[in-house]
Amino acid sequence: MISSTKPLLKMREDAEKIFHAGLAAVDPEAAIKKHCRIDKNNLIIGNNSFDLAMFENIFVTGAGKAGAPMASALEDILGDKITEGLINVKYGHLCKTSKIKLIEAGHPIPDQNGRHGADRIMEINRRASSNDLVICLISGGGSALLPLPGDGLTLKDKQDTIQTLLDCGAPIHEVNAIRKHISMIKGGRLSEAAFPASVMTMMLSDVVGDDLDVIASGPTVPDPSTFQDCLHIIKKYELFERLPSSVTALIKAGTEGKIKETPKKDSPVFTKTGNIIIGSNMDAIQAAEKKAVEIGYNTLVLSSMIQGETQDVACVHTAVAKEIRKTGMPLSPPACILSGGETTVTIKGDGKGGRNQEFALVAAIDIADESNILVLSGGTDGTDGPTDAAGGYADTDTLKRALALNIDPVQFLNNNYSYHFLEKTGDLLITGPTNTNVMDLRIMLVL
Amino acid sequence: MISSTKPLLKMREDAEKIFHAGLAAVDPEAAIKKHCRIDKNNLIIGNNSFDLAMFENIFVTGAGKAGAPMASALEDILGDKITEGLINVKYGHLCKTSKIKLIEAGHPIPDQNGRHGADRIMEINRRASSNDLVICLISGGGSALLPLPGDGLTLKDKQDTIQTLLDCGAPIHEVNAIRKHISMIKGGRLSEAAFPASVMTMMLSDVVGDDLDVIASGPTVPDPSTFQDCLHIIKKYELFERLPSSVTALIKAGTEGKIKETPKKDSPVFTKTGNIIIGSNMDAIQAAEKKAVEIGYNTLVLSSMIQGETQDVACVHTAVAKEIRKTGMPLSPPACILSGGETTVTIKGDGKGGRNQEFALVAAIDIADESNILVLSGGTDGTDGPTDAAGGYADTDTLKRALALNIDPVQFLNNNYSYHFLEKTGDLLITGPTNTNVMDLRIMLVL
Repeated sequence: MISSTKPLLKMREDAEKIFHAGLAAVDPEAAIKKHCRIDKNNLIIGNNSFDLAMFENIFVTGAGKAGAPMASALEDILGDKITEGLINVKYGHLCKTSKIKLIEAGHPIPDQNGRHGADRIMEINRRASSNDLVICLISGGGSALLPLPGDGLTLKDKQDTIQTLLDCGAPIHEVNAIRKHISMIKGGRLSEAAFPASVMTMMLSDVVGDDLDVIASGPTVPDPSTFQDCLHIIKKYELFERLPSSVTALIKAGTEGKIKETPKKDSPVFTKTGNIIIGSNMDAIQAAEKKAVEIGYNTLVLSSMIQGETQDVACVHTAVAKEIRKTGMPLSPPACILSGGETTVTIKGDGKGGRNQEFALVAAIDIADESNILVLSGGTDGTDGPTDAAGGYADTDTLKRALALNIDPVQFLNNNYSYHFLEKTGDLLITGPTNTNVMDLRIMLVL
Repeated sequence: MISSTKPLLKMREDAEKIFHAGLAAVDPEAAIKKHCRIDKNNLIIGNNSFDLAMFENIFVTGAGKAGAPMASALEDILGDKITEGLINVKYGHLCKTSKIKLIEAGHPIPDQNGRHGADRIMEINRRASSNDLVICLISGGGSALLPLPGDGLTLKDKQDTIQTLLDCGAPIHEVNAIRKHISMIKGGRLSEAAFPASVMTMMLSDVVGDDLDVIASGPTVPDPSTFQDCLHIIKKYELFERLPSSVTALIKAGTEGKIKETPKKDSPVFTKTGNIIIGSNMDAIQAAEKKAVEIGYNTLVLSSMIQGETQDVACVHTAVAKEIRKTGMPLSPPACILSGGETTVTIKGDGKGGRNQEFALVAAIDIADESNILVLSGGTDGTDGPTDAAGGYADTDTLKRALALNIDPVQFLNNNYSYHFLEKTGDLLITGPTNTNVMDLRIMLVL
């Protein structure tokens, strides 16, 4: 196989170092230990200080794919000070813990294990009294891993409802309004159950914009939406006949005051609840940027909130790289452009790939006439689509390698065969599972 | 109607000033006068100096929508020193000239007037001798306005060929290779006709990347493609049965040496030809940036080469604005982000609008939950799609105005009704025709 030129090989090493510096900053264990410590007899979590002498019990509850390392790190800090704990994690995402029990549950499709765990988590929170502290650990996947359908609803009713809303094109804030109102644990209800106990939540954010009430559907965060909003959404999309009757009945009952509304920001519940984000896409970007500066690159962070169709988003990125090459704007080489967020792929073919690999494939096509540009796009969870790759690389020689192998990049792209393409050109990014998830990180180097 | 808040109104005024500063920099007359002057008895064009005493005749030929003001400016500089001139312009794009004759012709569909003008332009160029200087003035639309089909081809054969190539998804460099080889004037053939006369071309660039051989299909620029390339393209897309037989016959004859190849960069022709760009998208961006700095904004130029589907490109732009609002990255408010290029719109509805108006509509939806962000997207030619608007504005109150009028932005977007939407919310950008075209300019302000 034709290999990249020497500068491109150096750039590939640099990009890998920069990516891993980003990952290290959002490692769940490191993130917990960065934001949580004991100082004398006080437990410091972010800007909050808890006098340990004041608390009879410390309970730990939560859910998410990073639950195991988060729990383990917290045990390292609090040890026997923890009374009891329970966290729902994804199948296979276990590690050794002592006080905090981990329950494996279904993700992305919720299952009975998740429901059972959610029940027990609610029981622990209800048991907590005003002399107790509940520490809640939330990470990506926490919504699916913490299913507790409202009265008379099955897990399937919930899933069908969400799918119907997505199918009719409802924007995410409308989907979330309904999701919270047909759950007994989301939209602040976990804090409500614990009240008057103190609740302190640490979150790894896997959502664009880091809105607290969106991450895992905000079990400890005030809910801005109401049952009335839900009814309005159902009317707007004419869903009365299309949603499970148990769901419409529950929401109607809510609007008639027969079911308690989710707690709002002026509720006394939230005088005793604190929420902090301990790891986000921007944290990864900033750590990556720091590493790039160390290596000697001029850096520019575009945004941590990039969304949209992967192909077009990739073209905007390569346009910036090409401008740097042509005019030295917006910054001079050696340049490193960083961005984050999560793009989408409209599937056209039956190929294997993921949004990050597709980003790399599009970039490879778009920079083929240039020199000394390298792109890395990777998922911080180490998994891009249904593949064993975290994402892909593209450099200004990638297309030459493809053409030497007689493979047509456009044909691979049109069938979403990004994995196979990058596998052949030697441009897959493989990290293995990272136990964290703050969406994607993209790194573009121009020498 | 609800009007924007006071800061937003100020930002709208600022954006308009910034946009018009960009336009002024690429005004054809100003651009000619910036790059062309007489110093003693020398004609200075860019870095080139022509001793006027050495030339018997100065001929002026060319084509493009900005031909009239370019010709007029050149007459202001050279006056009676011009022997004769002829430029093809679009219908209705005339102005008063003395020595340089303007011929109105069809655009975007070439017509017999254009062909007649191209014939006469070739005749002038062939007449020029080694003691003569030909100044060639090229601007957007120059390709369609300068049709001279090869032997045995009709204008319709040419059009059908290009359309067939576009329909089968051929990339633009393949379309251009064929376009040049079925023309008697493009791909450097104008310079070849004038040789051994000196040729100096001034171009207003309307193409992403400003590749000289792409602007108006490069009548005075070496052609990197060959008849063999054209044959390969025809084979690749299996077009032997689908292209007019006159076209395939001409290309086959070319590969057999029966028709002269277009001149290449090592041809003696180009020892006597110079090409400069006197106005480009980046020129507009830089002038706009200068104005933004004057007003007091921190500025960032993303790229002059932005392409892709308008909706997704707009979302990447608003992601940068939202990041500035949230974290002050990549720069602190008051911030002005600039970009250029030309996006595309995949039409889904039967509405009226254009890519810049659609950009504004998408931005309006995307920034509705923010404050003090304003977006302007406009075509530098003053025309966006089949409308009388140059583009549109969006600010963080645009959606409030729409909702107060009970109009659904998503419904308007899904039907490509951007013109009607922005008309109702008072967000159309109207400039009238500007007589120039360096693609689009986008300005995002964050206070």
